[in-house]
Amino acid sequence: MTAQNKGQDASPLRLGIAGLGTVGTGTVRIIQNHAALLATRSDRPVAISAVSARDRMKNRAVDLSAYAWEDDPRALALREDVDVFVELVGGDEGVAREAVTAALKAGKDVVTANKALLAIHGQELAELAEANGCVLRFEAAVAGGIPVIKTMTESLAGNEIRRVMGVMNGTCNYILTRMENAGLPYETVFEEARQLGYLEADPTLDVGGIDASHKLAILAAIAFGTRPTFDAVEIEGIERVSIDDIRRAADMGYRIKLLGVAQMTGRGLEQRMSPCLVPADSPLGQLQGGTNMVVIEGDSVGQIVLRGAGAGEGPTASAVLSDIVEIARGVRMPAFGLPASGLALPQPARTAVPAAYYIRLALTDKPGALAKVASVLGDAGISIDRMRQYGHQQTAGVAPVLIVTHKTTPEAIDHAIEALPGTGVIAGDPVELRIEEV
Amino acid sequence: MTAQNKGQDASPLRLGIAGLGTVGTGTVRIIQNHAALLATRSDRPVAISAVSARDRMKNRAVDLSAYAWEDDPRALALREDVDVFVELVGGDEGVAREAVTAALKAGKDVVTANKALLAIHGQELAELAEANGCVLRFEAAVAGGIPVIKTMTESLAGNEIRRVMGVMNGTCNYILTRMENAGLPYETVFEEARQLGYLEADPTLDVGGIDASHKLAILAAIAFGTRPTFDAVEIEGIERVSIDDIRRAADMGYRIKLLGVAQMTGRGLEQRMSPCLVPADSPLGQLQGGTNMVVIEGDSVGQIVLRGAGAGEGPTASAVLSDIVEIARGVRMPAFGLPASGLALPQPARTAVPAAYYIRLALTDKPGALAKVASVLGDAGISIDRMRQYGHQQTAGVAPVLIVTHKTTPEAIDHAIEALPGTGVIAGDPVELRIEEV
Repeated sequence: MTAQNKGQDASPLRLGIAGLGTVGTGTVRIIQNHAALLATRSDRPVAISAVSARDRMKNRAVDLSAYAWEDDPRALALREDVDVFVELVGGDEGVAREAVTAALKAGKDVVTANKALLAIHGQELAELAEANGCVLRFEAAVAGGIPVIKTMTESLAGNEIRRVMGVMNGTCNYILTRMENAGLPYETVFEEARQLGYLEADPTLDVGGIDASHKLAILAAIAFGTRPTFDAVEIEGIERVSIDDIRRAADMGYRIKLLGVAQMTGRGLEQRMSPCLVPADSPLGQLQGGTNMVVIEGDSVGQIVLRGAGAGEGPTASAVLSDIVEIARGVRMPAFGLPASGLALPQPARTAVPAAYYIRLALTDKPGALAKVASVLGDAGISIDRMRQYGHQQTAGVAPVLIVTHKTTPEAIDHAIEALPGTGVIAGDPVELRIEEV
Repeated sequence: MTAQNKGQDASPLRLGIAGLGTVGTGTVRIIQNHAALLATRSDRPVAISAVSARDRMKNRAVDLSAYAWEDDPRALALREDVDVFVELVGGDEGVAREAVTAALKAGKDVVTANKALLAIHGQELAELAEANGCVLRFEAAVAGGIPVIKTMTESLAGNEIRRVMGVMNGTCNYILTRMENAGLPYETVFEEARQLGYLEADPTLDVGGIDASHKLAILAAIAFGTRPTFDAVEIEGIERVSIDDIRRAADMGYRIKLLGVAQMTGRGLEQRMSPCLVPADSPLGQLQGGTNMVVIEGDSVGQIVLRGAGAGEGPTASAVLSDIVEIARGVRMPAFGLPASGLALPQPARTAVPAAYYIRLALTDKPGALAKVASVLGDAGISIDRMRQYGHQQTAGVAPVLIVTHKTTPEAIDHAIEALPGTGVIAGDPVELRIEEV
């Protein structure tokens, strides 16, 4: 029989699923509900042999009685009746790393949704997978149900990738859009998000930009054929984004997003995660709430935009199944699209690509104050595209001033921001945000 | 050596490229410019053996001297030194169909960008491919560089697809957005588009919705596991979209798009291509100019939106290369994602899914006129969500009235539209457009 018509007579692909949280139970649910669909699309049945989770007694609203139980994911990974180890435990160290390593060493294929593990130990695991003739797949690790890994490794194979951008943390995007829509300060919305259960146990993972940066490091590796290097991502979270900036940016036609950008430049690989302004009417600017978006630019394809749910049971489990079906079909790809040994160690580069910047400062009510500010910018080689001075507000004797610069370098901006307080006409610290061209 | 590290030592994948128009030369250009990239990503070199086109003497700005030349694509398809026949000739009959058939019969894999061929003869070709152990790939046939075929067949393999929608003809979207932005009537913008070379030789393919319907028929087949049945697409082009409707729709917060929708209902498979209203702030509503967008809804993944250039040398050639690299890697998928023999003959169903509708009519200046209109709608079981009567304009004694209905059935709308002239208070024919929920 050919690969195309083995159908359900073929031997089943046998899974061991470790971790039965939202994504794990979602994965079990799809396999139970869509057994026939999966068998047809995979050209063989997809079956669960065994599962593992921290608490066997927890009620999960899926029937696990047909599967063997293992308390230890490492034991699950080594079972004879497991062809593919599905790691949905999470965390870049400890049991997830140990179980994935054990599975690969035992010659098992691995599917995981673990962005931290891939961003930090991806190179080591990809090498281990290749040394053992295994595949390591992780579509669910980046942007939930959006097929970004497959698009980059396969659909854009004929392209040199120029830039990858993404809004990849739904919680941050929820907070930023909620601040804008309800006119609420960061602290209030952060507290709301916590009460709604949108935040990780350690909220820094979300609002500190760490989670999104894990995803960016994975995308950068695939896009540029380099080793994933999470350590080299310049990270800034959304904590310093004020409702004032959101309002002022909106006045100027922009929205503020926690935007990840990776691009290869003459100096090296830039990877940064930071609050940026984007045009309000661009696809990224239009993105509301918890939805994710990835923008990929290739030399032939131009700009491709992918949008969808970045988290949640269904979308993430959908991505896990995409990897499982691919393995069931016998498709074997290197983890990051190229053989791991061929991935270059990237030269990390601080952002040097010029951009327009948004600057907000509080100008004191002194004669010649604005001239002094303009002069500092001019000395730094920065020219002004648009400027707005608002009436005196809140603090007496202080007027908010907004500046949108022409394209300039991050160095010039740093230089100007450092020099501005020395003018003696500024109250408090000036705020600067990059305006990413999208 | 394993499949993952044959590298450039492996035997090259040898292509025969038929058709050297925009997409053909674009494909040659990528293969020439990115030879090393393609070899690494394919795990073997990708080489062109021979090419074919109508006019050998035409200057194409790519160097073809290293390739054998065939005047006849059918001869090209049969060459010993061709592993993959790349059909970029176009047209659903004649040489394209004959050459693809010849290639498959000779056991050659086929990559094509030919939407008409697939929409009309896809079933026959998919069966032929399977009977001969060949693959037939056509990522470039739908929405240019947007990886919609791969997303549906592979990334969403764990989903039951609920609905597929798309704006897939860039020329129509250019015309509609240009009408809105410049306030110009259809005829003027149509003429502009012709002069800019945006229209096919037979413009009905574009503005009549045929080209977009070819693409929809392909997507419907993949989404619902059915045979492609272009004949069953309900098609309406954009010729009757007036600048009045575009303006009025905008007043109510909508944009008009030539939207393809495929969904499986209790009655059968609905496939329709027609001008629809969509919310102006939705991703589909935001789509300007020649860009394409495909929206896929799956039971687990929710809604995925894919956006990018739907035509042009680079984007379309990028999709062709995606298929070529996949074949080079040894990935062998059935044409429409499932074995061709298993594709069901769909029960075609006229659109029955309820929706809100937009109705525009010219009301004559008679007492009780509006009451008569409301009464016809009421008799048809249609309730009104919003209504606007504008002041008398242009034609004396006639006032434009806009109605947005609550959700109702297409049958009820047909019934009402038929009955409205009988009231004697309407000048001309009423216009109705579906408001698709997106």
